[in-house]
Amino acid sequence: MTTTNDRAVVLASGGMDSATAAYEAQARGYEALYLLHTSYGQNTEQREYVCARALADHVDAADFCHVETSHLQQIGGSSLTDSGMAVAEADTESDEIPSSYVPFRNANLLAMAVSYAEANDCGAVFIGAHSEDFSGYPDCRPAFFEAFQRVVDVGTKPETDVSLVAPFVEWTKTDIAERGLELGVPYADTWSCYRSDEPACGTCDACAFRLGAFQALGERDPIEYEQRPDYAD
Amino acid sequence: MTTTNDRAVVLASGGMDSATAAYEAQARGYEALYLLHTSYGQNTEQREYVCARALADHVDAADFCHVETSHLQQIGGSSLTDSGMAVAEADTESDEIPSSYVPFRNANLLAMAVSYAEANDCGAVFIGAHSEDFSGYPDCRPAFFEAFQRVVDVGTKPETDVSLVAPFVEWTKTDIAERGLELGVPYADTWSCYRSDEPACGTCDACAFRLGAFQALGERDPIEYEQRPDYAD
Repeated sequence: MTTTNDRAVVLASGGMDSATAAYEAQARGYEALYLLHTSYGQNTEQREYVCARALADHVDAADFCHVETSHLQQIGGSSLTDSGMAVAEADTESDEIPSSYVPFRNANLLAMAVSYAEANDCGAVFIGAHSEDFSGYPDCRPAFFEAFQRVVDVGTKPETDVSLVAPFVEWTKTDIAERGLELGVPYADTWSCYRSDEPACGTCDACAFRLGAFQALGERDPIEYEQRPDYAD
Repeated sequence: MTTTNDRAVVLASGGMDSATAAYEAQARGYEALYLLHTSYGQNTEQREYVCARALADHVDAADFCHVETSHLQQIGGSSLTDSGMAVAEADTESDEIPSSYVPFRNANLLAMAVSYAEANDCGAVFIGAHSEDFSGYPDCRPAFFEAFQRVVDVGTKPETDVSLVAPFVEWTKTDIAERGLELGVPYADTWSCYRSDEPACGTCDACAFRLGAFQALGERDPIEYEQRPDYAD
């Protein structure tokens, strides 16, 4: 039994980055995509699920695994999963770890993805993390993915060969959007806002990064906003 | 805010090894234990929960977090979580990866434990894995824990300082039982059998290792067995 390499797991959050990662995976020859979407109690999980499910249709996914788990919410410590903590206004210049940081979240998601990959003989796990994430989140840094690759290499069966691929890890959000527009990623069916289910607030970190990327490319973001900054009209 | 203190997370499966790990943690000065127990669809999850809960009372745990998640069962690939796959009879000499291997399970459990530790300023995560596990399970080997420590170091907040402690990683089951009897671990409230909720089958790998450990020490295992081998009477 070998891990045939046209199969890849993609961590599909429902957002722009992971949708672009799915299209990038197919562009690199991974035709059979196994999408893993996790509802972990994040504020906007219903809308994210709808978008991830739509992505599975768009890429004609080989499989769609929807994990519902409450443990990150139970453990707490993040404004993303704790309705009692306010999501902060955008501060894209800050060096502080944002309140939306979910303790060690990406390790939890990658562990699930590798289990899913190993059980389905997939040769890769794609994750859409990018450089503007790792300014704030320790579990989005290149060093984190390199360290996790080692865990995969020693912690799976000898015949398992799963590569972690974070294709955008050194890119900006604008680079991702540019690549995604080139690949035809249906951004109308993606969700980024940390705060509300619909329409997007337009003022949290995630909205600010997203709107900024479209602005830099001279494109209009196709989703609706509660409050669209003047520059993004 | 520092994490150097007397707080530790213990991955409490309900079994002998993790119960002994909890007592070992206290013996090493971690008085405030945060027990993390996971129901992930394993065959004997109800009985394991009862034992983990009893352990929390025995050690007067500071907190008990019960995670219920279906993702390992959804992902499948193991006789431990797939009721359609038979649990094999004991073969403690085999080099094959047993059918009870849950793909990359310990990475999933450690990721949860580190999230829990980071959210609660704990300085350590204890896991009761031992050398007879890693003869069969790749995610129980010393190299796996060393690699995971690096992921923790780079993937958590700068002020977070969590040490993974696998105190028995080079020990045999017999060594663990000997230490546990010395520490007064209440083994009557621990569960090892992979197959049935009560009484333990006495014939699966986990029962065979457990019974063998008590036999080697000349002690009688205090739990009930469906079928107790002659040597263990």
